[in-house]
Amino acid sequence: MISFKNDYSEGALPVILEALVKTNMEQTVGYGEDEYTQQAIEIIKDAIKCNDCYIRFLMGGTQTNLLAISHMLRPYQAVIAADTGHISQHEAGAIEATGHKVIEIPTDGSGKLDVPTIAKAYEVHKSDLHMAQPKMVYISNPTEFGTLYSKAELKAIHDYCKKTDMYLYIDGARLASALAAEKNDIALSDYPEYCDIFYIGGTKCGLLFGEALIIINPELKEGIFCSTKQRGATLAKGRLLGIQFAELFKDNRYYKVGKHSNDMAMLIKEGVQKAGFKLYIDSYTNQQFFIFPNELLKKLDKNVRYEFWSKLDDNNSVIRFATSWATDKKDVEKLISFLENIKE
Amino acid sequence: MISFKNDYSEGALPVILEALVKTNMEQTVGYGEDEYTQQAIEIIKDAIKCNDCYIRFLMGGTQTNLLAISHMLRPYQAVIAADTGHISQHEAGAIEATGHKVIEIPTDGSGKLDVPTIAKAYEVHKSDLHMAQPKMVYISNPTEFGTLYSKAELKAIHDYCKKTDMYLYIDGARLASALAAEKNDIALSDYPEYCDIFYIGGTKCGLLFGEALIIINPELKEGIFCSTKQRGATLAKGRLLGIQFAELFKDNRYYKVGKHSNDMAMLIKEGVQKAGFKLYIDSYTNQQFFIFPNELLKKLDKNVRYEFWSKLDDNNSVIRFATSWATDKKDVEKLISFLENIKE
Amino acid sequence: MISFKNDYSEGALPVILEALVKTNMEQTVGYGEDEYTQQAIEIIKDAIKCNDCYIRFLMGGTQTNLLAISHMLRPYQAVIAADTGHISQHEAGAIEATGHKVIEIPTDGSGKLDVPTIAKAYEVHKSDLHMAQPKMVYISNPTEFGTLYSKAELKAIHDYCKKTDMYLYIDGARLASALAAEKNDIALSDYPEYCDIFYIGGTKCGLLFGEALIIINPELKEGIFCSTKQRGATLAKGRLLGIQFAELFKDNRYYKVGKHSNDMAMLIKEGVQKAGFKLYIDSYTNQQFFIFPNELLKKLDKNVRYEFWSKLDDNNSVIRFATSWATDKKDVEKLISFLENIKE
Amino acid sequence: MISFKNDYSEGALPVILEALVKTNMEQTVGYGEDEYTQQAIEIIKDAIKCNDCYIRFLMGGTQTNLLAISHMLRPYQAVIAADTGHISQHEAGAIEATGHKVIEIPTDGSGKLDVPTIAKAYEVHKSDLHMAQPKMVYISNPTEFGTLYSKAELKAIHDYCKKTDMYLYIDGARLASALAAEKNDIALSDYPEYCDIFYIGGTKCGLLFGEALIIINPELKEGIFCSTKQRGATLAKGRLLGIQFAELFKDNRYYKVGKHSNDMAMLIKEGVQKAGFKLYIDSYTNQQFFIFPNELLKKLDKNVRYEFWSKLDDNNSVIRFATSWATDKKDVEKLISFLENIKE
Repeated sequence: MISFKNDYSEGALPVILEALVKTNMEQTVGYGEDEYTQQAIEIIKDAIKCNDCYIRFLMGGTQTNLLAISHMLRPYQAVIAADTGHISQHEAGAIEATGHKVIEIPTDGSGKLDVPTIAKAYEVHKSDLHMAQPKMVYISNPTEFGTLYSKAELKAIHDYCKKTDMYLYIDGARLASALAAEKNDIALSDYPEYCDIFYIGGTKCGLLFGEALIIINPELKEGIFCSTKQRGATLAKGRLLGIQFAELFKDNRYYKVGKHSNDMAMLIKEGVQKAGFKLYIDSYTNQQFFIFPNELLKKLDKNVRYEFWSKLDDNNSVIRFATSWATDKKDVEKLISFLENIKE
Repeated sequence: MISFKNDYSEGALPVILEALVKTNMEQTVGYGEDEYTQQAIEIIKDAIKCNDCYIRFLMGGTQTNLLAISHMLRPYQAVIAADTGHISQHEAGAIEATGHKVIEIPTDGSGKLDVPTIAKAYEVHKSDLHMAQPKMVYISNPTEFGTLYSKAELKAIHDYCKKTDMYLYIDGARLASALAAEKNDIALSDYPEYCDIFYIGGTKCGLLFGEALIIINPELKEGIFCSTKQRGATLAKGRLLGIQFAELFKDNRYYKVGKHSNDMAMLIKEGVQKAGFKLYIDSYTNQQFFIFPNELLKKLDKNVRYEFWSKLDDNNSVIRFATSWATDKKDVEKLISFLENIKE
Repeated sequence: MISFKNDYSEGALPVILEALVKTNMEQTVGYGEDEYTQQAIEIIKDAIKCNDCYIRFLMGGTQTNLLAISHMLRPYQAVIAADTGHISQHEAGAIEATGHKVIEIPTDGSGKLDVPTIAKAYEVHKSDLHMAQPKMVYISNPTEFGTLYSKAELKAIHDYCKKTDMYLYIDGARLASALAAEKNDIALSDYPEYCDIFYIGGTKCGLLFGEALIIINPELKEGIFCSTKQRGATLAKGRLLGIQFAELFKDNRYYKVGKHSNDMAMLIKEGVQKAGFKLYIDSYTNQQFFIFPNELLKKLDKNVRYEFWSKLDDNNSVIRFATSWATDKKDVEKLISFLENIKE
Repeated sequence: MISFKNDYSEGALPVILEALVKTNMEQTVGYGEDEYTQQAIEIIKDAIKCNDCYIRFLMGGTQTNLLAISHMLRPYQAVIAADTGHISQHEAGAIEATGHKVIEIPTDGSGKLDVPTIAKAYEVHKSDLHMAQPKMVYISNPTEFGTLYSKAELKAIHDYCKKTDMYLYIDGARLASALAAEKNDIALSDYPEYCDIFYIGGTKCGLLFGEALIIINPELKEGIFCSTKQRGATLAKGRLLGIQFAELFKDNRYYKVGKHSNDMAMLIKEGVQKAGFKLYIDSYTNQQFFIFPNELLKKLDKNVRYEFWSKLDDNNSVIRFATSWATDKKDVEKLISFLENIKE
């Protein structure tokens, strides 16, 4: 069966595995103090054009989010997020488990926050000391719906955060896909300028696993290793992350991973629409959302793995096809061909 | 420089990497729902002779400990541990960060708990409702000092826990080394009988990373996946853990890993003593602790990586040499030869 | 200046203070183990017609809510509440600080939950193990908007909770006002039948301070004293709570407190409307919400203390007048007379 | 039966109750924003000779400790305390429940910390980032054993804390007794100079309930109201605390409360020794600890309430007699006379 269920169905870019095999018997110190990790940090600092930042490699997105957010907030402080945000929905209450409220803002269906909605939530909470106090804004780029922020939108949010003394944190689980998207105007090197902290996703962008947490704001760096240890987020053989990230950022690979994912996604976007199905949302990245009649889903189930997203109404559902660095064009063609036939 | 600094200096058994390379482009579902994970679970259930248990693969020891302990306890409940226990000392307050007190018991220097010391702590706390209530005992086997519990000792602690309605949790970070130790009388298949929950360590026993959490007591299984997700302890590409553990438990490899580690450790134990240095503690597993004059450490520093453990007195220190599946006998010989010369 | 700002502006029913004065020099044991506390427990058990429950006296509403909810939930479990619920809005993230997500459901403006909205939230979360798992429903009666549940509504929610294995928790901060309300059909003795746990509010119903937490469901009783201690919610001189509650439940006083509060509120409801202002919501209890033009608020500010609730639109606001056992009818008349004149 | 079980057996100084009765029907705003609270704050600022501090009134000792400590620490930070400290033993894991480790240091039996023991713990933890990082020292004065710090000892600890960038927090649950003790050389007005934060105990020193948390270090003030709300530690009728503290600090009453308690304790100290029993520890404050043969305890049980402290050996126990502002000299004489007879 072909699968477009998610972007973590395969292992890693072969070059990543080769590097792990090649270095396997070397002896290094643990917990990220090794030279490979140091090398990867330097490569990423170059890529983001920011020397004065702190980088730590972690193992997964939820882990990174809960660590970063809990490290940065005082007990009574809260984080503002879209109600469709990963931390709001799909992390099993991970942020709350560290003691912090996620102030969830309804979005217009785009998965994106904007200054007016953030400001409204901020003002309500800030004016009442019986409420949790917002100190951070969380956004994802691309969002959980594959949509993108423009540089102007990002800058506006960042400006608002600075004005209100809040931190801006960007979840870049699928950042490669954002960077390579057709209409994207935010370069990787723009990120340090427009946020206090962000992470570059590896798990969904070519690695076996791994996310690079990047702290720009100097007041947030202190004690981060201890927090990492405390949350069970350190890897004893820390070099595994360093080796992987060093490879991922050589030869423009991170961008290429995003480019291939997006190319395959655009084929799906076009083909599935041609086959007669409606987009649920207009995404230019590696996640594509469609509206499917429930009765057709039963046929689809037997041939294609996809992600069921939500009920739309009694007869229709929203489903997601995801692509990745590993997506085979032939599989995309099979999918489209199957869908062209399924409707008849 | 040769290194005996720890048992996580190298990557993984080559056969592990081969399996990862071989399966790399296969598509599987995520988060441990794949067939490789299922296969590994079955292999381990066979190995521990326990079908009716729940197994989940995790990424590291601290992560496993904090997840397991917080999942099992009610807010007001505490865990009893040796003051030298990993959760007491080297996890940066990870258990407390989930809301629970670690009741730390001084040991006699062996790193081991016994029933009288547990009972004393239990009774003091249980008789006073203004104190945190003990509901779990945590032990490591081997301990953080490389020492071992006998089956009789383990059984006695387990019996006491049952009598007092406490859970017994065994940290098996280096379980391979315990299983293969000369004087060990606890078989792998004994563990399900003598505890409520334990974990089989992979990171320090041949894997790139990975620990197998095994829940025996049925009342502790509910909700464990959610807890795992909430603590950021799920791996998107969960099969990476399944593939590794499946390989590790084929061909008696887990035992062999322990055997080789111990063999190398015994050579060190004998050789270092012959070279004129005193044991700090009598360990039969892969960690060996010695007393070294501080002035000799300066010479050692230039030639050998080791772990500084603690000050003994003004002139002497305790240091640790650790071996692993990857330790080369030639390096052991070099170490001993170096030490024979150093004293002169 | 006359004040309708809240229902905790004065001290306590004089009879309460008299009892405290009278018993002041007696010696009793601490932490609620005294005879006065025991007596109050018996009186309340009689009043709610439930002998087989556990009662503990606490000092305030937020304290009671955070203690009860955290005591009952496993780490990965969440509580469902109205987005206008006290725990959602006005407790500074107290529930999240104990590690639990509050799943906030938009209400229709009534502040009340119903089965369809609860069920929708339940099903979405329950079907996805990457989400926090709902285990409890929180409602307030009266709600934060002064509205009331009918017995049929309460029973329906309770039935749904039983069906889905969730606990139902009722916040009765202003329960006296509910009990004495014109259209109320839930007797105090109905509460044990229709929930797992609830509290009878004292702070806003005649006491200096104090809430009576009542646990009906036997599986929730274990360890509650320890949890109370751990949250800093025990009072050393615990009898202060026992003495107060014993007095409050003699001579039908609890009902009378509610009756007087409501009578005064109904005068306000009628009079303010007659004076030409619109109700924001139709409440039959001691909180009355009105829509006021912003320009009139400036005049009001100089003469009457009230609670600003929220902006309605650019020109109008929602404000609250609250009454209590201590409200003087003359002050109500002054308020109405003032409002009759203010508009002109 | 006469009782020396604790110092919270009675209500409050009569003058306190009179003030509550007198102000009962006044209307004030809630949550400590009233004029009585403001007045009490000013009186205390005068008494401690520190204008530039932040004062908040809370309801109990455990509540104050957990609030203060969790408010001040980052997630990975820990507090150093004596293993006999209240937060180590008798708060049911309240500090850990907020996520922080208490690094417990064995004392020499005095209940007091000193610089060498603090420094040892500090250095071990600070040198290893896999350990929780100490950021605060907690001491009680008087200690849980009634002993006192000298000004020189306090200054030394404070100097060490400043040197190592740790906060010093002083638990003054029984501060009145310290202030009035024979050998005390620390004035109330010295406290702001020698710590970052402390609290003046009211519950055990003449109030119905109440502790005054005083924050000296300006960087610790931000957000404290929100933290208070979040921990359920705000009192709706906040003036109850203000009224009480204002009365307690008029006419030198706080000192007098301590003086009477100590005077009665000294009579006990002398009389019980004369009656042939041994001091367990040499206390000059209102708690007196003695060694009693177990067989005599049975007789004592029938006549006197006391606190059983701990087993000393198979035949002897440590017990505590506590006095307070309310202790009647006649009861002391009865106790001594009873003990003189009991031994025969």
